[in-house]
Amino acid sequence: MIDTSSPGVLGQRMAAEMAEQPAVLQRLASTFDAMTAEIRSVAGRHPRGVAFLARGSSDNAALLGRYAVELYAGLPTCMVAPSVLTAYGREPAGFAGWVLVALSQSGQTPEIVSLAERFAKAGAGVIGVTNDPGSALADVSDLLLDIDAGAETAVPATKTVTGQMLAMLAIASGLPDHGLGTRQIAAIPDAVAQILADTDRPARIAALLAGDDRLAVVGRGVCYPAALETALKLQETNAVMAHGFSTADFRHGPIAVCGPDAPAVLMAGSGPADDDTLGLRVELTRRGAPTFTVGTQDHADMPWPPVGDAGECILATVRGQQLAYALSLARGIDPDQPEGLNKITLTH
Amino acid sequence: MIDTSSPGVLGQRMAAEMAEQPAVLQRLASTFDAMTAEIRSVAGRHPRGVAFLARGSSDNAALLGRYAVELYAGLPTCMVAPSVLTAYGREPAGFAGWVLVALSQSGQTPEIVSLAERFAKAGAGVIGVTNDPGSALADVSDLLLDIDAGAETAVPATKTVTGQMLAMLAIASGLPDHGLGTRQIAAIPDAVAQILADTDRPARIAALLAGDDRLAVVGRGVCYPAALETALKLQETNAVMAHGFSTADFRHGPIAVCGPDAPAVLMAGSGPADDDTLGLRVELTRRGAPTFTVGTQDHADMPWPPVGDAGECILATVRGQQLAYALSLARGIDPDQPEGLNKITLTH
Repeated sequence: MIDTSSPGVLGQRMAAEMAEQPAVLQRLASTFDAMTAEIRSVAGRHPRGVAFLARGSSDNAALLGRYAVELYAGLPTCMVAPSVLTAYGREPAGFAGWVLVALSQSGQTPEIVSLAERFAKAGAGVIGVTNDPGSALADVSDLLLDIDAGAETAVPATKTVTGQMLAMLAIASGLPDHGLGTRQIAAIPDAVAQILADTDRPARIAALLAGDDRLAVVGRGVCYPAALETALKLQETNAVMAHGFSTADFRHGPIAVCGPDAPAVLMAGSGPADDDTLGLRVELTRRGAPTFTVGTQDHADMPWPPVGDAGECILATVRGQQLAYALSLARGIDPDQPEGLNKITLTH
Repeated sequence: MIDTSSPGVLGQRMAAEMAEQPAVLQRLASTFDAMTAEIRSVAGRHPRGVAFLARGSSDNAALLGRYAVELYAGLPTCMVAPSVLTAYGREPAGFAGWVLVALSQSGQTPEIVSLAERFAKAGAGVIGVTNDPGSALADVSDLLLDIDAGAETAVPATKTVTGQMLAMLAIASGLPDHGLGTRQIAAIPDAVAQILADTDRPARIAALLAGDDRLAVVGRGVCYPAALETALKLQETNAVMAHGFSTADFRHGPIAVCGPDAPAVLMAGSGPADDDTLGLRVELTRRGAPTFTVGTQDHADMPWPPVGDAGECILATVRGQQLAYALSLARGIDPDQPEGLNKITLTH
């Protein structure tokens, strides 16, 4: 178990916040049906598409939302490029009848709040997803989903990210034509608890990676957002040049970066896109690149339980948090407050 | 000037193909108005949005298309995630009345061709963008834009990428409500020629970077696709862990990876998003990270002429090609045929 008792321990806030995830996810899972009903009433019967607006780790949660909406609700999606609307000053055109999902852990990122308002004026139904229901994001949202994760003070966002991810699954389930069962949702909190109880495996892998300053994290489909989020956590906490790749893109070019000093972490669960990722092992081995597997396959270096479908993105994300945390400790870095980083994004 | 005369010279094919870019771009620019007229007839008066389907460097060209369509045509866009439709087997739903832009340099990537066909069946107008008008992509496209760049044999795609980028500007111009002038298009070929004539600056920067195996390439707005494409070229040719970042995301976390051994390349032109990128220099300097500027600002380490707007993405991309090429030569690597990579992507 992670020791969070003594003050001044490296990463004690990050560890404590990671440990709260089963409870946060349990609360959200218990209100899943209520959330989907509210989402249905905002989205209406025939939404034209779903746009996602976010930055940083919230953007990785949004990417899971994108996959879930396409997979389960069969609607077009758009990952909003904020600069088009801020720096270039365009108005969001053509989004009447769309749903805009605006994610901000603090609910106070000025860029996200003001853009959400502009989408509302353009005729989109706005669903805000935040950890602060009293924040400015509430004022501009038709529906606010409260992650209710409690205060998060370590710079690397953990429990708010997995909470947002569960909210993304609720959004996909609340739209017409969804095929996502609530049974897999109910299995997620226990699966996360099971993962968090295993700190030995992340520590062992961290010891092997402690000397490397380059790392590829690879996944496809619903594991891709987790690969990006894991790379971001490694960048923030360890100053490692970690790069998240989609499996297909990685194979046809970027795989050249991996070798004896540049290992790869492959994230692959029980979904139909995951064998493709595991197939990379042959070429990575040929290149002499140490390769670690995270997922549901036999003898995975960091396993997770096969809860199925998009929910496994949450499990993969927790494994990635553990890896970032353990690697920080192996290097003697405090992941709670990486040098020069602030908790709240203030992009205008 | 780049010497491509003697056989067996490292990177002679890449250099020759890069050098053809002014001619390729000139041909495309001269047919720009004809292309936009054809695009207008496929897109109709009220397209609902524009989806882009591509892999690898074509996907970076597609990302410029996404920005250009949002900036100049004010329409929703979607970067298609192929795995949703292939691995997970969903049909593209909700895309009736959309335009699908399918990019494949070879025109024979099976995944791109078969997915384009499925979008056509779902009611989207399909515009294919390829360097081989006789390829299978032609059969499934309502309109085929031929890059007409001639054979490209070096593994790192160069002239086909900038050709695709110009085609993306034509697509944005062919849609209703466009605000992109043809004057800046006409200026691009000469600007590229001017850039290519300057091989000294890329060589000097490459000499300074030759010992680094980690690199951040950062840009915002229309420079962001060029940052991603430059990172990809560096990965393919140099096995460097180069990571392309959007400026706003980079500032709030990943900037932690930069330091004395992990330099940053900032791409910033004359657009309204670009000052934000240059603002990173203060924090990068504080971290001791060597920082190189590419763009239109005074004393840029690798300048480009200010042709304005989205066209500068093409100039930034050419500067990135030069950097990847020069860095290969500085390290004694042959960029024409990086170990273990194939020219044509065969993802199904």
